[in-house]
Amino acid sequence: MTKIPVAIVGASGYTGLELIKILLNHPRFEIAFLGASEAAGEIAKTHKSLNFVIKTEVEKTEIDEIARRAELAFLAVPHKQAARIAKELLAKGVKVVDLSADYRLTRENYEAAYGGEHEDLENLAHAIYGMSELVGVSAIQNARLVANPGCYPTASILAALPFLPFADLSQPIIIDAKSGVSGAGKSHSDRTHFVNVNENFFAYSPISHRHAPEIEEKLTIAANRETKAIFVPQLLPATRGMIASVYIRLAKQIADPNTIAREFYAANQFVRVINEPPQMKFVAGTHFADIYAMQKDGTIFVQSAIDNLLRGASSAAAANANLMCGLDLARGLPTIAYAP
Amino acid sequence: MTKIPVAIVGASGYTGLELIKILLNHPRFEIAFLGASEAAGEIAKTHKSLNFVIKTEVEKTEIDEIARRAELAFLAVPHKQAARIAKELLAKGVKVVDLSADYRLTRENYEAAYGGEHEDLENLAHAIYGMSELVGVSAIQNARLVANPGCYPTASILAALPFLPFADLSQPIIIDAKSGVSGAGKSHSDRTHFVNVNENFFAYSPISHRHAPEIEEKLTIAANRETKAIFVPQLLPATRGMIASVYIRLAKQIADPNTIAREFYAANQFVRVINEPPQMKFVAGTHFADIYAMQKDGTIFVQSAIDNLLRGASSAAAANANLMCGLDLARGLPTIAYAP
Amino acid sequence: MTKIPVAIVGASGYTGLELIKILLNHPRFEIAFLGASEAAGEIAKTHKSLNFVIKTEVEKTEIDEIARRAELAFLAVPHKQAARIAKELLAKGVKVVDLSADYRLTRENYEAAYGGEHEDLENLAHAIYGMSELVGVSAIQNARLVANPGCYPTASILAALPFLPFADLSQPIIIDAKSGVSGAGKSHSDRTHFVNVNENFFAYSPISHRHAPEIEEKLTIAANRETKAIFVPQLLPATRGMIASVYIRLAKQIADPNTIAREFYAANQFVRVINEPPQMKFVAGTHFADIYAMQKDGTIFVQSAIDNLLRGASSAAAANANLMCGLDLARGLPTIAYAP
Amino acid sequence: MTKIPVAIVGASGYTGLELIKILLNHPRFEIAFLGASEAAGEIAKTHKSLNFVIKTEVEKTEIDEIARRAELAFLAVPHKQAARIAKELLAKGVKVVDLSADYRLTRENYEAAYGGEHEDLENLAHAIYGMSELVGVSAIQNARLVANPGCYPTASILAALPFLPFADLSQPIIIDAKSGVSGAGKSHSDRTHFVNVNENFFAYSPISHRHAPEIEEKLTIAANRETKAIFVPQLLPATRGMIASVYIRLAKQIADPNTIAREFYAANQFVRVINEPPQMKFVAGTHFADIYAMQKDGTIFVQSAIDNLLRGASSAAAANANLMCGLDLARGLPTIAYAP
Repeated sequence: MTKIPVAIVGASGYTGLELIKILLNHPRFEIAFLGASEAAGEIAKTHKSLNFVIKTEVEKTEIDEIARRAELAFLAVPHKQAARIAKELLAKGVKVVDLSADYRLTRENYEAAYGGEHEDLENLAHAIYGMSELVGVSAIQNARLVANPGCYPTASILAALPFLPFADLSQPIIIDAKSGVSGAGKSHSDRTHFVNVNENFFAYSPISHRHAPEIEEKLTIAANRETKAIFVPQLLPATRGMIASVYIRLAKQIADPNTIAREFYAANQFVRVINEPPQMKFVAGTHFADIYAMQKDGTIFVQSAIDNLLRGASSAAAANANLMCGLDLARGLPTIAYAP
Repeated sequence: MTKIPVAIVGASGYTGLELIKILLNHPRFEIAFLGASEAAGEIAKTHKSLNFVIKTEVEKTEIDEIARRAELAFLAVPHKQAARIAKELLAKGVKVVDLSADYRLTRENYEAAYGGEHEDLENLAHAIYGMSELVGVSAIQNARLVANPGCYPTASILAALPFLPFADLSQPIIIDAKSGVSGAGKSHSDRTHFVNVNENFFAYSPISHRHAPEIEEKLTIAANRETKAIFVPQLLPATRGMIASVYIRLAKQIADPNTIAREFYAANQFVRVINEPPQMKFVAGTHFADIYAMQKDGTIFVQSAIDNLLRGASSAAAANANLMCGLDLARGLPTIAYAP
Repeated sequence: MTKIPVAIVGASGYTGLELIKILLNHPRFEIAFLGASEAAGEIAKTHKSLNFVIKTEVEKTEIDEIARRAELAFLAVPHKQAARIAKELLAKGVKVVDLSADYRLTRENYEAAYGGEHEDLENLAHAIYGMSELVGVSAIQNARLVANPGCYPTASILAALPFLPFADLSQPIIIDAKSGVSGAGKSHSDRTHFVNVNENFFAYSPISHRHAPEIEEKLTIAANRETKAIFVPQLLPATRGMIASVYIRLAKQIADPNTIAREFYAANQFVRVINEPPQMKFVAGTHFADIYAMQKDGTIFVQSAIDNLLRGASSAAAANANLMCGLDLARGLPTIAYAP
Repeated sequence: MTKIPVAIVGASGYTGLELIKILLNHPRFEIAFLGASEAAGEIAKTHKSLNFVIKTEVEKTEIDEIARRAELAFLAVPHKQAARIAKELLAKGVKVVDLSADYRLTRENYEAAYGGEHEDLENLAHAIYGMSELVGVSAIQNARLVANPGCYPTASILAALPFLPFADLSQPIIIDAKSGVSGAGKSHSDRTHFVNVNENFFAYSPISHRHAPEIEEKLTIAANRETKAIFVPQLLPATRGMIASVYIRLAKQIADPNTIAREFYAANQFVRVINEPPQMKFVAGTHFADIYAMQKDGTIFVQSAIDNLLRGASSAAAANANLMCGLDLARGLPTIAYAP
């Protein structure tokens, strides 16, 4: 069967690498273009683990060339830059899954959180937020531009969704979230220096983190009422994975919350509602989200675990690409965790 | 100046080791007895890092011998066992700092959380909970039996205390807490196996953990109103340290919460209210608790960091012993962190 | 195309899990039996990461049942136990890849290193040591019993092989090796306690480790001269992976050692001779061995990196099974590393 | 008793911090000057763990000011820069312990390893290499300029010293060394990025590392014969500590090597010859070096463990300062490890 040619723009980062890894095992996609800001020779020069695995060259990102070769492009580049590329690719008929924040928010929320004016309002108007649990499968199937959700919003929203109908949303939802360091990308900083992370744990940008408006905007849509969140991201001394503890005040009595979550996700093959707190290690390497919920004193405690680079970025992007290209959501998505 | 002779019962565990380390540098205490369930030769056989540092022998715990030699005993043994030893030592005039849970709670709360009947109700009646921020310095100065607080309660209560006057306590306080693995002690289990902890993060005994009733009982006393907590302990892939994220619903508007915390702890030389989220690494090795607070949407987010083995156990015990022996609380307490 | 049914005996350990993970992705093998000492319900009860992935039940190991269902069995059980099971399976016509040490050594070396009498001398006589680089592909293709090499011997021998022809073997080869903790298995011990491993590094059983005779016996065969080794295994604060630094005294001048290694392994698609020291992370999750060599003052320094659970155990076993069942060595072997 | 005023030039790095920590507990030294390239306010702004501990200001390094206030200066600045400062301080009568490489080597070796011309040949001529085990205590007592040894040379030389009289030095000594990441300092680089270090292990600059000539030069002096080394430094996924595996070919038969080492270091209170392989964790936080030796097939395997930032830098500097100021070598040196 012919494979569908796709491009990765931003192949040199961690999410670019994860996309490559998924596509190498994907039965229906093939890598037609690996783009970066500069040509960089074989991809194994950039990602040494790909030595002997794939010989594709990293090329300078050229819109025409991508349009000539690929049906869909994944954009794994910084925000602002993503919108500029997306705009041109869409104009040339290439479908786009954008892993940046550029098309996730309303114009108002985007400009407040990311600064400056949004540079592609036209496409923003019809971009679809790529979380099928929230927007439905068909919206993504019909989309030409999908905004791939942020990692923290993915973990937070998946945990909260089953309980929104029972929530007292006059109070903020509390999200105490923890991420592995790979979420910070390859850039060097105090926050990614081994000595500062190892044997350490700390919050960064609590309450004011840019993922907070994304969480609030999407929960508001899901709840169909204004929803506030107290969002606290924290850095774990680990490379991969993310856990969100979500605390929701109840407006009414509910039955066993884990049963409610299990029923809510009964038809979802990538959300595992389990009988004990989720462990980051059991989802690392996969598209799974693991969820567990309890209640006490009128409050829900629900926890979700995801791989921040996969369900929180690259495998979610692949799931969206699957739908946009007429494939089953599940095609080629990673399910076998790295554990032990 | 003559030194005050003290005993450590339970010298072979991590908190025993930390007590030894503190006492070696303490200007007014000297180690008069190191006890364990069996004699074990020089302490460096048990704690190899003490080779060339201290030659004291580990002896079988004998009440009479301790009473003959020591003015005060630290009990670093499991609950139940602690009460049996404390009872006998107190009867012989030895002051006791008990690091177990045996004298921390009311009889009712103790028996509900730890099972069985409390075996020393007489001393339980006059035991003092050893957190000076909560009970005041003089109560500890006059005590002959101090129940050293648990690590999670210490981190949680120190964070919550400044905000109880402003809290809406009709709702539970939410405590999302994270601990290094040393809190689990030396025992071998799935939860302390390196492969299960490394590159992982997970909650254990959420809501039902035995420190929950301790937290609720003490917060209720501090607030002078029934106070509930949703307490979620989680295991970090790190050896030492603890961070508690505490979320408190406000009953009324307040000014800048960090200023409130700073004023609350203005006279406290071991609580550092800082201008950014605390880092576990900057308190590891010390008696300090670092605190930072923010508010949003009628909710306080306050975070505390402590060394679980020190402020959460052994240096807190030393602080209590200082007061019980007429010394300044601060004498000989560790202040220089292990960082980097 | 019909798949070849295979059994895993010892499905509950780490190497059992890795075998399952490989077989799930293998185009020609299917899991026909998962055995353990006791029936244990669905495998996801034992390996939680397999939840939603595979529903196969773990059964009590029954020789007849395995023989009825499987053409080949992987034995991932302790030595001694392995020989007892292998003997019976072979008698019933099932091919065996034994991951234990039971068939790796001559009787003399085995009994000296592992104690007691070897219980299956008959099969020992025709067992093949499953490293194709050493014994050739056809020996394994024709074998009905393959002794899968130990992890340390694999890393050590692959590094040393290209240089044996140039070595002064009157002197021992020095092997300074480092392993992740998963090599110690799931058992609880001081050596696997997180607190003892984290922020630590130490040698265990230096010189006397049981893999030393395996290394010496196989290098002796490869060199066709008695070869001695100083073998020092060390524990890394990491879960997966292994690096061996091998130092070999030269008997004669040689050209660039990395070129020699590259030519030696030119036809080997799973040995990557690279231009800088190998990194453990770039082979973790794969069957690759990465190798780099230098020389100075008449001495070769050559380093190899492997995944201790894969190239050092389970993917090597799969490679051997491929050959024993008439497949290409490379079929279904993992090549995509977990990095980042 | 009056304290001796000392300066730290380069207070903002890890070794600067460790010097501060030692001096805070030192009975006879007091910090008279903390210097950096720019004034930086209270030292706790730079090293946050020192908040509430010490309020000294970090000043711009001014030679005259240091000379006015301090009797001795520790230089914890990069090489080249160190020589420029040392030269001026010495001219003004300030004793200097230089933690850089500037005065460790002969001019020839220095210029070959570090490039450029040495800028202070005059002082280089009388600088003393600050390892008392090698040069004797009195040489340091009489020195006004001490070159503090590198971390790798310290670990390597301490391990090798007892065996040089028995060694076949026609062959290189093999040194397979492993260091925690703090050895790389605070600078950001791929090699200090958490994601690249965690769950990883690799050699860097094998054979060609700048510490190799230091090791060879000093071993040559100690052995009184030309001595070569194959030196392989490797990065551990840990913050602190260093282990060197040293392999030495014997020229003659020797008795038990551990006994030889124990007798060699019998009078040395900071070298612990132990009965099992040393563990990095048991020396972290201390000035101790732990050593263990075995032999096989005419080859010594000897391993040493040190804290790279202390025995490998700052506590060694303090020991040298003690001697240079007429104090006992041991005064105020840290002996209590961070373990657990």
